[in-house]
Amino acid sequence: MLMKHVIMNSQLPFLCCANNCMLLASSPLFRRQRFLIRSFGGSIDHCRNSGSGKMQSGQVLFDAEDIVRAITPALDQSRHKGQAGNIAVIGGCREYTGAPYFAAISALKIGADLSHVFCTKDASPVIKSYSPELIVHPVLEESYNVRDEDKKIITSKVLAEVDKWLERFDCLVIGPGLGRDPFLLDCVSEIIRHARQSNIPIVVDGDGLFLVTNHLELVRGYDLAVLTPNVNEYKRLVQKVLNSEVNDKDATQQVLFLAKQIGGVTILKKGKSDIISDGDTVKSVSIYGSPRRCGGQGDILSGSVAVFLSWARQYIEASGQDSILSCKNPAVLGSIGGSAIMRKAASIAFSNKKRSTVTSDIIESLGKSLEDICPAGSSCL
Amino acid sequence: MLMKHVIMNSQLPFLCCANNCMLLASSPLFRRQRFLIRSFGGSIDHCRNSGSGKMQSGQVLFDAEDIVRAITPALDQSRHKGQAGNIAVIGGCREYTGAPYFAAISALKIGADLSHVFCTKDASPVIKSYSPELIVHPVLEESYNVRDEDKKIITSKVLAEVDKWLERFDCLVIGPGLGRDPFLLDCVSEIIRHARQSNIPIVVDGDGLFLVTNHLELVRGYDLAVLTPNVNEYKRLVQKVLNSEVNDKDATQQVLFLAKQIGGVTILKKGKSDIISDGDTVKSVSIYGSPRRCGGQGDILSGSVAVFLSWARQYIEASGQDSILSCKNPAVLGSIGGSAIMRKAASIAFSNKKRSTVTSDIIESLGKSLEDICPAGSSCL
Repeated sequence: MLMKHVIMNSQLPFLCCANNCMLLASSPLFRRQRFLIRSFGGSIDHCRNSGSGKMQSGQVLFDAEDIVRAITPALDQSRHKGQAGNIAVIGGCREYTGAPYFAAISALKIGADLSHVFCTKDASPVIKSYSPELIVHPVLEESYNVRDEDKKIITSKVLAEVDKWLERFDCLVIGPGLGRDPFLLDCVSEIIRHARQSNIPIVVDGDGLFLVTNHLELVRGYDLAVLTPNVNEYKRLVQKVLNSEVNDKDATQQVLFLAKQIGGVTILKKGKSDIISDGDTVKSVSIYGSPRRCGGQGDILSGSVAVFLSWARQYIEASGQDSILSCKNPAVLGSIGGSAIMRKAASIAFSNKKRSTVTSDIIESLGKSLEDICPAGSSCL
Repeated sequence: MLMKHVIMNSQLPFLCCANNCMLLASSPLFRRQRFLIRSFGGSIDHCRNSGSGKMQSGQVLFDAEDIVRAITPALDQSRHKGQAGNIAVIGGCREYTGAPYFAAISALKIGADLSHVFCTKDASPVIKSYSPELIVHPVLEESYNVRDEDKKIITSKVLAEVDKWLERFDCLVIGPGLGRDPFLLDCVSEIIRHARQSNIPIVVDGDGLFLVTNHLELVRGYDLAVLTPNVNEYKRLVQKVLNSEVNDKDATQQVLFLAKQIGGVTILKKGKSDIISDGDTVKSVSIYGSPRRCGGQGDILSGSVAVFLSWARQYIEASGQDSILSCKNPAVLGSIGGSAIMRKAASIAFSNKKRSTVTSDIIESLGKSLEDICPAGSSCL
């Protein structure tokens, strides 16, 4: 199995599966290639804790790009629409329309087959007009549009509309451009509960994190949830959960502890390096990204993680014990894949557009980012 | 006549008309070129049944690209607006706006002169915003906007609006983004009846297939109707019409039988190879397409088939007994042409954009797809 991979991708002679290739991993060739990868900014994931079904101490680990190659599905003519991913973004209100678009279109540009947005009626025509590629459902409501006596029935209607579709989705992205309207957030809380009941993974970002930080019970113990906080969102989460301040000196240990305290959800802490933990393992992705901090990059990341989480889940279900990856948590693998592709795309966009780089430029670079790591013309691993 | 074609298009020395060129078809040059076409993924159409006005057993057959070349009209300065096709898409509702846009813009990009969309009032501004090229009529209504007591008069108004234009259209595409609102579908049933009375061809896809599968009388026996089911739509059609399950082992025979049972409508079953039958002949188009299964490709196909069906009808009417094509059914020829152009465009788009390919990329490749087969600078056949 390993030899096949080695032959199929000449960039990967150092790839190894902990169970059967320690000799190869210890070879001079392996060490030299690994050094080159480090020198050119590739990330090495670190496993700090071992646990059931996760990486074991002493294993030689895959880097982020290896994981992308492993979980990205092969393309062939026999596949049909939906098999490469059906993603839904819950977000978009009167005030914010760009964020849900960025998340949803990123999912498509990475390779999902279908991408939906569930937003308010006001936001819908605008989001639709950004791109005919998205399926936009104008179903959410904000308080200004709803009388108190109608709230119950309207909540039911919103949920019925979402439920019609829910089982078809491989992952929900909750939060981009959601806003903080209390009635809308109540509806979204119910959507999260329904998704959880149906075992549908969720990626929570932006105002979704505001909601979840105030209602931790929505995600506590749900191992198919990924939270993607930026600096400020992380600070609020740490204060709420750990009742302490952010510890930058030992950031990985704090992310690990935080994830454990929320019952094994996966946290992707965005920063100079992205730190990812499910409370069991902790990994970092430090592929060189972009020094531009234009708004919207978090939305790309959330859509990207959603796709890779779906693919990782498919990969793990299909490969079972034959998986070449020691890590069996699709939320962690999806976070690593999403982070790697996003950072690489940002780097490509910045090299072309420099200070003028905007979020749409990064989205246009997602395809090249994935193609550079995992060419579509060949099975990747 | 044949020699003229041979001289005009150096790619086609092997072209043959069953009535007058069997010697040429049997030449070593013909066989070698045919072999090369097969080797590079060109499709060979198979005639399984012969019948009145259709291909005869033992004939040397044209491949899909030959048919495109035969039916694509010559371009010259003396032609005027509308002669290359005036297409209308019936679809677009509050929920779906991308699909009718994809179908309508594809018709234009292939070479139709005019492309209309008849959609709901909510969908209209969004579809208009996608492109100034389309003529968008906000005439359809959904139930939520109509009181029961007004339904009759509103149906009459909708039909009057469509009827004003109907005679000008060369083909209707019914279904992309139509939705499943019962009142809207009732109106569309009437539009189909009117189109049929006026002998205007129809291509039925998406939610139009949902309607037609439940009301087979709308298309039964109408030989200018093309149904373009995907895997799931085909399954429902087979269950409804044949009261059986899909037979993948002898797919061509089942499509043939299904088309016959619906009275000679043409069925274009989408899949790894597209299978096309009018209940009399059965053909397949297997030009290499794309392994990407992003949503919206079916909409391109429906717009594409509409254009080629119009052109095939013009070609057959103009050439009469001089037609170089044995097949005289414009619905079948249009399905072959539409399928060939769509698949080739998908292949071109994928070669450029890989996993990042979205439907708009394929639409942008339609022109090159047609140009590669049938250069605009010369008469094609």
